[in-house]
Amino acid sequence: MNDEMRRFLRRCTTVALLGILLCGFAGRSALAQSDPLPSWNEGAAKKSITDFVARATTQGGADFVPADQRIAAFDNDGTLWCEQPVYFQLAFAFDQVKAMAPQHPEWKTTQPFKALLDRDMKAFAASGEKGLLQIMAATHTGMTTDEFSKAVLGWTASARHPRFNRPYTELIYQPMLELLAYLRANGFKTFIVSGGGIEFMRPWVEKVYGIPPEQVVGSSGIVKFQMDANGKPELMKLDKIEFVDDGPGKPVGINRFIGRRPIFAFGNSDGDLQMLQWTAAGPGARFAGIVHHTDEVREYAYDRQSKIGKLDKAWDEAERRNWTIVDIKRDWKTIFPEAGRR
Amino acid sequence: MNDEMRRFLRRCTTVALLGILLCGFAGRSALAQSDPLPSWNEGAAKKSITDFVARATTQGGADFVPADQRIAAFDNDGTLWCEQPVYFQLAFAFDQVKAMAPQHPEWKTTQPFKALLDRDMKAFAASGEKGLLQIMAATHTGMTTDEFSKAVLGWTASARHPRFNRPYTELIYQPMLELLAYLRANGFKTFIVSGGGIEFMRPWVEKVYGIPPEQVVGSSGIVKFQMDANGKPELMKLDKIEFVDDGPGKPVGINRFIGRRPIFAFGNSDGDLQMLQWTAAGPGARFAGIVHHTDEVREYAYDRQSKIGKLDKAWDEAERRNWTIVDIKRDWKTIFPEAGRR
Repeated sequence: MNDEMRRFLRRCTTVALLGILLCGFAGRSALAQSDPLPSWNEGAAKKSITDFVARATTQGGADFVPADQRIAAFDNDGTLWCEQPVYFQLAFAFDQVKAMAPQHPEWKTTQPFKALLDRDMKAFAASGEKGLLQIMAATHTGMTTDEFSKAVLGWTASARHPRFNRPYTELIYQPMLELLAYLRANGFKTFIVSGGGIEFMRPWVEKVYGIPPEQVVGSSGIVKFQMDANGKPELMKLDKIEFVDDGPGKPVGINRFIGRRPIFAFGNSDGDLQMLQWTAAGPGARFAGIVHHTDEVREYAYDRQSKIGKLDKAWDEAERRNWTIVDIKRDWKTIFPEAGRR
Repeated sequence: MNDEMRRFLRRCTTVALLGILLCGFAGRSALAQSDPLPSWNEGAAKKSITDFVARATTQGGADFVPADQRIAAFDNDGTLWCEQPVYFQLAFAFDQVKAMAPQHPEWKTTQPFKALLDRDMKAFAASGEKGLLQIMAATHTGMTTDEFSKAVLGWTASARHPRFNRPYTELIYQPMLELLAYLRANGFKTFIVSGGGIEFMRPWVEKVYGIPPEQVVGSSGIVKFQMDANGKPELMKLDKIEFVDDGPGKPVGINRFIGRRPIFAFGNSDGDLQMLQWTAAGPGARFAGIVHHTDEVREYAYDRQSKIGKLDKAWDEAERRNWTIVDIKRDWKTIFPEAGRR
């Protein structure tokens, strides 16, 4: 080894050691300073989450859960994203009626389509549940899965929420985004378990929540495999309900799609009650949480009397069972991500 | 920096450099020597697999596929494990009738149970499809999902295959285990898409194939959420078919459970035809493969005339479309893993 080489090596060593020292410092100070849930105010709700994750991930601890069993299930409407003034999937359906109207001249004179096109919500309301189902069928079926997926992505890119004037996919809860990331960083696999349509969520959930399409459980219609006119296979969406992933359907959907019982679940309404019960009733460490919408200034305030996202029985059960109740006004520093961040 | 420190640093550098050099050598020689598919004979089938994986994973190449779209779907019966002399799930059902008989004294005098208990296969055959459905209902329903899972694991631990005298979960194909691992090492997510029961597979697939329960698509019965006598939630398996994941049901099941079209699929029978068509018809790089059972000495030989795992239309389509056809006798060095390895 000549002198030049020696000098070179010495310099490398010094640089490397400095690097290691610096990394060590940075790492430690990052650990000390970084809060994985910065949009959560300090309090019982936040503490119950971080305490649970610490218990579930502490090797050798009484409540340790092996990584492959760290399944976390989240409702979507009202839990991960806003659900007012109407479920966003309904807003999509209404917008689609307008978008599809040029191909359906008969809608100008046929209810309930006419009412929607005329923005006559009173006439539309008069068409009742039957009218709603007609709108859902017209906008969600009679097309291939690929065509529907394109329609959904077209809508998420262009539609704006009437109050916040932002894309619907930006009206997601920043504290819940942090919670999803925090759980994943701790070895959890995060799933959506929603009453909403599975095909409506899958096109955008990966980009918006970091949850891949195969980790989405939702309601579905019958889909049929067939060959198109050119002999190319396609999947056609039929006007027939297959599965309703709501209420007692949620633990059933979890069993069918995930095949393991979650150890962590979050919801916000009575439609999540059975999912929370199923999650909480398993052995070992368990977390059940409810988002309570209490902030009409920054978002919305609703619970027992609401037609959308009614929180009544699940609230009573949460009190009785000592589940975590997140009070948005009290517990969340921010509601939505900064505009344009998504 | 004093001399001692300098000497120490120099020693560190030398050791580190040696380490890097050694790693480099070891890495290169490991790469040069290690064959990810050692149980596959060299030939067109093996080459079509490794060529496809190279194309799909070469960044900047014309056929590059981003990791999140590398979905691989495998049939189970006859593709990942043996399916003769009867589908293993049927063997489970027959064994369960014997195991459950003490709790069902009436079976001693009731067909088709009596025939099975008497080992009178002629009488059992006479009961036809109706008899088979009765056996499936009695052994697969009227119990909770937890109870069923325990029964399956009891059976996989104790039952032995009549010809090979080994646990059924050891009668898996070593070359396919290597293929699953090879795909996963190349960023693929591996799924089972089987006509078999989803609840029958999930308890053991992770240990046996390295595929987690949530990556299993299969046939299913209706499951009901209810509270047991102690007010504890449970999922009860009802005697009603929910979904048949076979033939045209396979692309439907893929759409419902995975939500993305696979780029790689392997099957062995006409029940896999539509899954292979659906996979092959997508844009970009695609792989469709069929296992042809040609080795009656080491395993079984059957195709167009077989009642189990009939391979007829899918074979013709494979020839027409230039899909990969694996001839077990010619292409596989070994069939099953060494005894006791699993």
